[in-house]
Amino acid sequence: MGALASVASPKAGASTGHRPNAPGSDAPGSEDALTALLGLLHDDMQACNREIVARMDSDVALIPQLAAHIVAAGGKRLRPLLTLASARMCGYPRASGPEAGGARHVRLAACVEFIHTATLLHDDVVDESTLRRGMASANAVFGNKASVLVGDFLFARAFELMVQDGSLRVLAILSRAAATIAEGEVLQLATQNDLSTSESRYLDVIRGKTAALFVAACQVGAVLAGRPEEEERALAEYGSNIGMAFQLVDDALDYAADQAVLGKTVGDDFREGKITLPVLAAFHAGSAADRAFWRRTIEESEQREDDLDHALRLMAQCGAIEATLSRAAAFAASAQAALAPFPDSPLRRALIGVADYTLQRAR
Amino acid sequence: MGALASVASPKAGASTGHRPNAPGSDAPGSEDALTALLGLLHDDMQACNREIVARMDSDVALIPQLAAHIVAAGGKRLRPLLTLASARMCGYPRASGPEAGGARHVRLAACVEFIHTATLLHDDVVDESTLRRGMASANAVFGNKASVLVGDFLFARAFELMVQDGSLRVLAILSRAAATIAEGEVLQLATQNDLSTSESRYLDVIRGKTAALFVAACQVGAVLAGRPEEEERALAEYGSNIGMAFQLVDDALDYAADQAVLGKTVGDDFREGKITLPVLAAFHAGSAADRAFWRRTIEESEQREDDLDHALRLMAQCGAIEATLSRAAAFAASAQAALAPFPDSPLRRALIGVADYTLQRAR
Repeated sequence: MGALASVASPKAGASTGHRPNAPGSDAPGSEDALTALLGLLHDDMQACNREIVARMDSDVALIPQLAAHIVAAGGKRLRPLLTLASARMCGYPRASGPEAGGARHVRLAACVEFIHTATLLHDDVVDESTLRRGMASANAVFGNKASVLVGDFLFARAFELMVQDGSLRVLAILSRAAATIAEGEVLQLATQNDLSTSESRYLDVIRGKTAALFVAACQVGAVLAGRPEEEERALAEYGSNIGMAFQLVDDALDYAADQAVLGKTVGDDFREGKITLPVLAAFHAGSAADRAFWRRTIEESEQREDDLDHALRLMAQCGAIEATLSRAAAFAASAQAALAPFPDSPLRRALIGVADYTLQRAR
Repeated sequence: MGALASVASPKAGASTGHRPNAPGSDAPGSEDALTALLGLLHDDMQACNREIVARMDSDVALIPQLAAHIVAAGGKRLRPLLTLASARMCGYPRASGPEAGGARHVRLAACVEFIHTATLLHDDVVDESTLRRGMASANAVFGNKASVLVGDFLFARAFELMVQDGSLRVLAILSRAAATIAEGEVLQLATQNDLSTSESRYLDVIRGKTAALFVAACQVGAVLAGRPEEEERALAEYGSNIGMAFQLVDDALDYAADQAVLGKTVGDDFREGKITLPVLAAFHAGSAADRAFWRRTIEESEQREDDLDHALRLMAQCGAIEATLSRAAAFAASAQAALAPFPDSPLRRALIGVADYTLQRAR
């Protein structure tokens, strides 16, 4: 789509030496960035996938059935991949000594994915979504009730695994993240249909609902490897910025992608009256008539058949999608800058590539 | 109601020396048993209530608002009360030494209540309940979405508090309990509308969804006080049997109580096609015509206006409520027997009274 063909240059990129790939450059594409990371972590990721399947089991047959549905739907496993990558970049496990050959990173990556999956199951119930990753969502297949309860199970199971791991520091990071995610989701609910929501409040929402788990996923890697606090903070900062970029692009895609590419229904956010940056940008840039349109469709939830098309036209007129992607690019650049404390390595390069990947999903 | 006026004598009571009060005896009534426990733990319970209010706070205003709604609705705080009682009966904290004057039992009792509250919020969404403890349920007031998400928040907050407490043993017990509760709830969903469910499967459901948290609530008390494994097991056994008795009485009350007494809608289980012991008893004791009635109403969810009254008549004919309460009484007696390893004390006597209380709710 036209609006997605140009991403404004990031403001924060220049100082780091890592500029997110400009559109049309011959830098590796988005899939390549993820493929590179997966190539470096192939065995770890396979072990993580085995751990996920083994640990979502239960004597109650409906639990692995429903969990398998959402796990089989794939997704890129970006969050556990970041835990594995962070741990390995930080040198976990040591080549010798008591931790040699350890697999704590694999188990904790699975925990991160379980927490993510639990929030996805509950999100789809809350949003009444029927599509997830291009397949019927779990709630559409198994019903809302089963989705709520299996989400609860996966969440509890994640904590059981963390307890088995035995690090109170890791437990503190991930339990804090889980509470922050829920706070972000509730805040999102409170801002729904409310066009007086400020941009900063919108950023608070996505910092909670999305970035918090990316922060924890990355930070845990440094903790596992016993790295100094500076590196822990650097990886948390990287994760936070990746998460923000990721969600901003997601919010742009909801108005700009092909359904086949997106793997979920286009215009969902519009129909739900969700307050995202594209909407806020178009609302604030709009004429009196435009604002009346947004008030009717978003605040009063009174939508007609061609309203989504009209919304897309208004966004195109004022560059709302470009503005959103530009903000995403700035966060991606900050993510790359946050990796400064780490020496060059294939994993560091791959993590820099992940920042590009978050943007390139929009191309 | 007539069916509730007579509780069959427990089979397991005689061997313990603690027989649950027979109906019509002049033993203290149910409120007295709880009042006695509350009297012994007044300061602890006040501290626990303060902890609950302080820890359900969040910058996201909707969270304390919704949480206050369900917390204000009261409930007897039976589970945290059991944690406090177990810890104190086991001698926590020691009168001198590093743990003297400790308040870990208060914090962990609050955790137990948060986990319970989270499951209540999700239950009411899953069951589409509109009444809880005699008030409009949170989902009826704030919507299903907020209930799901605030439940998630309270669950995560409970784990944060446990992590602050710092005992991996306690974390293991409560994370296992949380997973078991979710398994029980999913199993209940899987048995819904299915009259081929065996009694033993029904007992599995309530062992998971209800007894598991009572087990953990009591066991944690012994762990806090550093008591030997035998006493830990004894308190777990006590909690398990209390939980089973409690749920069996609850399932009887759903068909036999006044709505004003019950604090929720009578006949909810019937309308939902929930498989509980009163239904299984009436179904198995019924004639061919009766069974056809149960199949139509429970399995096919085809219910007419006077079906609940007919269901109550069938249950009265075969003594289904009495049979259920008799099972409850046997569990209550086992709970009392489980306290054998502990010397006589006011707290032990109060805990014995709690077993009576679970039964006397039905009178």
